[in-house]
Amino acid sequence: MPETVTAAEIAGAIDHAILKPELTRTEVDADLDMAARYGIFSVCVRPSDVAHAVERLAGSGVAVGTVIGFPHGVTTTTTKVAESQQALADGAVELDMVLNIGRLRSGLLDDVEADIAAVVEAAGDRVVKVILETAYLTHDEIESGCRAAERAGAAFVKTSTGFAGGGATVEHLRLMRAAVSDAVQVKASGGVRDLDTLLEMRDLGVSRFGTSATATILDDAAARESGGVGTGARDDSSY
Amino acid sequence: MPETVTAAEIAGAIDHAILKPELTRTEVDADLDMAARYGIFSVCVRPSDVAHAVERLAGSGVAVGTVIGFPHGVTTTTTKVAESQQALADGAVELDMVLNIGRLRSGLLDDVEADIAAVVEAAGDRVVKVILETAYLTHDEIESGCRAAERAGAAFVKTSTGFAGGGATVEHLRLMRAAVSDAVQVKASGGVRDLDTLLEMRDLGVSRFGTSATATILDDAAARESGGVGTGARDDSSY
Repeated sequence: MPETVTAAEIAGAIDHAILKPELTRTEVDADLDMAARYGIFSVCVRPSDVAHAVERLAGSGVAVGTVIGFPHGVTTTTTKVAESQQALADGAVELDMVLNIGRLRSGLLDDVEADIAAVVEAAGDRVVKVILETAYLTHDEIESGCRAAERAGAAFVKTSTGFAGGGATVEHLRLMRAAVSDAVQVKASGGVRDLDTLLEMRDLGVSRFGTSATATILDDAAARESGGVGTGARDDSSY
Repeated sequence: MPETVTAAEIAGAIDHAILKPELTRTEVDADLDMAARYGIFSVCVRPSDVAHAVERLAGSGVAVGTVIGFPHGVTTTTTKVAESQQALADGAVELDMVLNIGRLRSGLLDDVEADIAAVVEAAGDRVVKVILETAYLTHDEIESGCRAAERAGAAFVKTSTGFAGGGATVEHLRLMRAAVSDAVQVKASGGVRDLDTLLEMRDLGVSRFGTSATATILDDAAARESGGVGTGARDDSSY
């Protein structure tokens, strides 16, 4: 691990994903407690778990975020706004919205931008990240989606939902980092399953990581920080 | 094909699914026009396509339905209600909602029922179908989910979204048909890719079929009805 990166810094850049539709309350709670134990930046939970997560993580220092229009991005703008308002009322402080993938692929960029802008407006001073779902997109579409997100006022562009069969790639992250100004951050998600992948992406200018392999990654970082070679462990059951 | 079933009757029991997130407007329009040509019962479109589909299918006799909380079912009840109201305002006449899968698996049946009941109430006299996503569920959970749907006033129980890696099976359809009274219909979806599968499910008491293999199935039905042996064709690219 580069000497300039600490395990705590890595923890501070992780949004731990607790998004699978089939997770039980008990499984969600185990993940929330892990997040508190490791002191990560935030959890990204299912919309109907926001209120519960906020209550369970009170005082832990772990922020609670959620997803909007997830995972397909094809709900109406009105619904995305209503969903955002509910999420904020329930205590979410970051919103990871999926842009309208079909409209982006149809070249309807004004629609895509307006959809994002409405969520950004509903979010007020809260962070909005825009998920592109790059697995479905050409390079041109990735670039135009990123630019629409920046024009609409998004704080981040983000690669993937983790549910489309393909996640973040170095190639796509490079493209995204170059497509937006320094005012917009890049989040990698889907496929961030080990520390080396995370560090490689970090070197590209990625500043936030969505993963469910959090414990594996942070245990490895702690082992390397304490002078060992680390485990190099990878969690392929994660997303 | 049984002599008592006509191709028109089969067409009248199909909800043609146009739900993939990456579909362009042009691809959606091709499917809408196919639906009108074959005279099927309805199309089930993405929420942000409802208004467009209603306009394009005006006068065709094909109904427009959409999905709520799709495909994960883990949005809040408030959001599902807002999404339902928007869908009805846009002209949808049937709503296929996904129940809260995580809560069903957590045994929180009162929550599951209240979530469905809120959508049923928002829908007024419109049909609400409840998607269980059986691929994630045990037999007990399928039965208790079906019963919660009936108590909440749903018109249909439905197997799958088509996005969870497993669709309708004969075993699950039998279980669902037995778990609800005759007042509740059963819809099979995910994996209905050929006419023989559809007919086998119909014999179990399934009265509606969600598929994107509509043209393949109806061409086969027409060939058999006109006295041929049919094609037995299967569309594995569909869902």
